[in-house]
Amino acid sequence: MFGGEMVKHWRRQERLVYITQYLIQHPGETINLNTFAAALGVAKSSISEDLALVKSALGRKGLGWVETELGAAGGVCYWPGRGLEEARALAWELCEKAADIRRFIPGGFLYLTDIVFSPQLMAQVGEIFAARFQPRRPDYVVTVETKGIPLALMTARSLGIPLVTARREHKVTEGSAVSMSYVSGSSQRLQTMSLARRALPAGAKVVLMDDFMKAGGTARGLQELLGEFKAQIVGIGVLMEMAEPPQKLVQDYLSLLVFEGVDEKRREVRVRPSDWLVGEKGGGS
Amino acid sequence: MFGGEMVKHWRRQERLVYITQYLIQHPGETINLNTFAAALGVAKSSISEDLALVKSALGRKGLGWVETELGAAGGVCYWPGRGLEEARALAWELCEKAADIRRFIPGGFLYLTDIVFSPQLMAQVGEIFAARFQPRRPDYVVTVETKGIPLALMTARSLGIPLVTARREHKVTEGSAVSMSYVSGSSQRLQTMSLARRALPAGAKVVLMDDFMKAGGTARGLQELLGEFKAQIVGIGVLMEMAEPPQKLVQDYLSLLVFEGVDEKRREVRVRPSDWLVGEKGGGS
Repeated sequence: MFGGEMVKHWRRQERLVYITQYLIQHPGETINLNTFAAALGVAKSSISEDLALVKSALGRKGLGWVETELGAAGGVCYWPGRGLEEARALAWELCEKAADIRRFIPGGFLYLTDIVFSPQLMAQVGEIFAARFQPRRPDYVVTVETKGIPLALMTARSLGIPLVTARREHKVTEGSAVSMSYVSGSSQRLQTMSLARRALPAGAKVVLMDDFMKAGGTARGLQELLGEFKAQIVGIGVLMEMAEPPQKLVQDYLSLLVFEGVDEKRREVRVRPSDWLVGEKGGGS
Repeated sequence: MFGGEMVKHWRRQERLVYITQYLIQHPGETINLNTFAAALGVAKSSISEDLALVKSALGRKGLGWVETELGAAGGVCYWPGRGLEEARALAWELCEKAADIRRFIPGGFLYLTDIVFSPQLMAQVGEIFAARFQPRRPDYVVTVETKGIPLALMTARSLGIPLVTARREHKVTEGSAVSMSYVSGSSQRLQTMSLARRALPAGAKVVLMDDFMKAGGTARGLQELLGEFKAQIVGIGVLMEMAEPPQKLVQDYLSLLVFEGVDEKRREVRVRPSDWLVGEKGGGS
């Protein structure tokens, strides 16, 4: 990508712009300092100084952190940062969007499709989940089609890892696959999901992501399916969980929002940020 | 987001990092210069100077362009740029990945699921399509589930617009919907697709995105469905088209790759960049 061209010396101000855009575009990827040095026509020591500036500027607003590893195999890696403050602000913004009575659909549903498919919103939510799950060093993000895909994709992008998507039906274009049946908590119907054998190596560390959790039937189904791949599940994240039932079929999941229901008479939709965002007593701002 | 805090003066080097990351994270969105001035505790005139530097540094490697509009309603907008050179390099990289005989699946299929769900690859491909379609000023990107979603989402993100996803079945959680049947070119089966009434306002300018096109049956089905929304289709993009049949059911589409088939005897998968990337005669490197 960088080879073959005559590189003119870049000034520091330009280098800062170049390095910043490159890091932001390649979250979770380790980049050798020589790559930058070659691209910008300066010594590695200058790049090190640039990186220190980038790191401190991004750190000032909690916009992520820059890790540098020394040595020949070393490099620099950027992780998007979304602190608790930012996560909370985004959760409240989403609550306001979601709790609009015009979203109410007879049967007690909320129309959230525009939110779960929003690239701009899911990019931000994905960064929040990525920041929470990154210390557990997952190898893959896994979801099941369809509405969880945007959030799962953006989370995987922020983590710098691949996304694996289980399908509802086995597809001939995917070769041999493992299929299983489970009861969905929201529809109480028997459903199937299927994952191509070659989609995931044995023993991978995975994070499960979905848009919505009622009883957790889909997440448990996915857990069981992944058991067939000897995967180690290091995290489960959902954009929104339902307050009822409070006991889910899976444990240790993280949600951003809680949907408490719709009061049809008062025309009121009740959505709030999850407890971890507002403190133990559910208070806070 | 920026309000309420005491802002200390930021130095230019730090401002360049902050502004660059913000623009890259908000492609296609117009940002008022006052937003930056308030966040960084400096005058708007300093921000203007910073933006000129960011613009010229990004321009040096064709990494996108920064548009500034003057006046009270004015602001700055960043568009990711992927020139022909970069598009070509990425297409060749994808050809190499795709043309691996281990991807061959009996029946003449190629396993491409890991590619179409790759956040890192689809982010790059999305930028290429966004750069081509942006001058036509689309309001929405539209796709149909499932494998086109990552590319469609990333294209929409680079364009700064929403994604609308047609479903294979009508979902009760989406309210009233328009459904239609069509014959898929690849399976020659009757399929249905459905789009919620509220998903798209009448008369919107849309770009259709998908992962794969054989005869174009799905794209034509989507065109017809969107006719019910009086949408104006300003572009059609697919990651990969099949060389056969050469006559598609839709016109004026743009693909990145052409799948020419698998020679089972010679164990050879033939995938090449599309003509527009390699010159009129299909040559070039």
